[in-house]
Amino acid sequence: MRAADLVQPYPTVTLTTPAIEAARILADADLPGLIVVDNQGRPFAVLPGTQVLRLAVPSYCQDDPALTHLVDEAAADVFVRELGDRTVRELLPPQPHELPVVPPQATALEMAALMARTRSPLVAVVDGALLGAVTLHALLDRVLPL
Amino acid sequence: MRAADLVQPYPTVTLTTPAIEAARILADADLPGLIVVDNQGRPFAVLPGTQVLRLAVPSYCQDDPALTHLVDEAAADVFVRELGDRTVRELLPPQPHELPVVPPQATALEMAALMARTRSPLVAVVDGALLGAVTLHALLDRVLPL
Repeated sequence: MRAADLVQPYPTVTLTTPAIEAARILADADLPGLIVVDNQGRPFAVLPGTQVLRLAVPSYCQDDPALTHLVDEAAADVFVRELGDRTVRELLPPQPHELPVVPPQATALEMAALMARTRSPLVAVVDGALLGAVTLHALLDRVLPL
Repeated sequence: MRAADLVQPYPTVTLTTPAIEAARILADADLPGLIVVDNQGRPFAVLPGTQVLRLAVPSYCQDDPALTHLVDEAAADVFVRELGDRTVRELLPPQPHELPVVPPQATALEMAALMARTRSPLVAVVDGALLGAVTLHALLDRVLPL
């Protein structure tokens, strides 16, 4: 079993996709994360779902649960408005990191090791162009004994 | 909107659940992670899906893509056998960390801030006993503007 056998089409966003639209794609398609592609359609980053929330949470609430607790329920319900017209570019972590990207020949073990190491619930499959992705669930479905 | 309004029943595992069974629960119910409960049924840890893979990946492959690449396809297909009779206890990271656990009164913003900070795609909701969980997708579905 190789990445080529498991790859499925996967939605992508670009650096200029509005953050709110990225959050919507994530939620509507029930995705574990988003593949961010560059101008050539190649993976630039894989953004875990939790990090899409990061920009929506006001900076004074990021690290201080006590301050977050002071925000009343009505204001807390509409916190995603904080995303405003920000883009996916601003959601990305500042440091470069190992990308969860594999060639079509990658084995199940190679994909699993990469998911574990990068803590990414999906790997992008690239053969020059982006072919799609293999999710953790798709991989587990195939490798778990019946 | 409070955690009490969004909480849903959520499968749990214990420290002595076989790791292979935990992986199966994760895959079958398409869960973003697992709630590990202690003997009193209270959350002891929340294990992201990717970390369930960690123990299945042989230690010599954990950090070395080149070595992983040397494993042939047939052997790579059955890597989950490495889990053997290991338990969830062995899947947990060694260091204690902030738990993604909230009371029923937690607001949408409090849950979002906690998910972003702990990088957990779910929060457990506890009121003495475990009531269930709120997932990132359930939260996004409710807070994103229509």
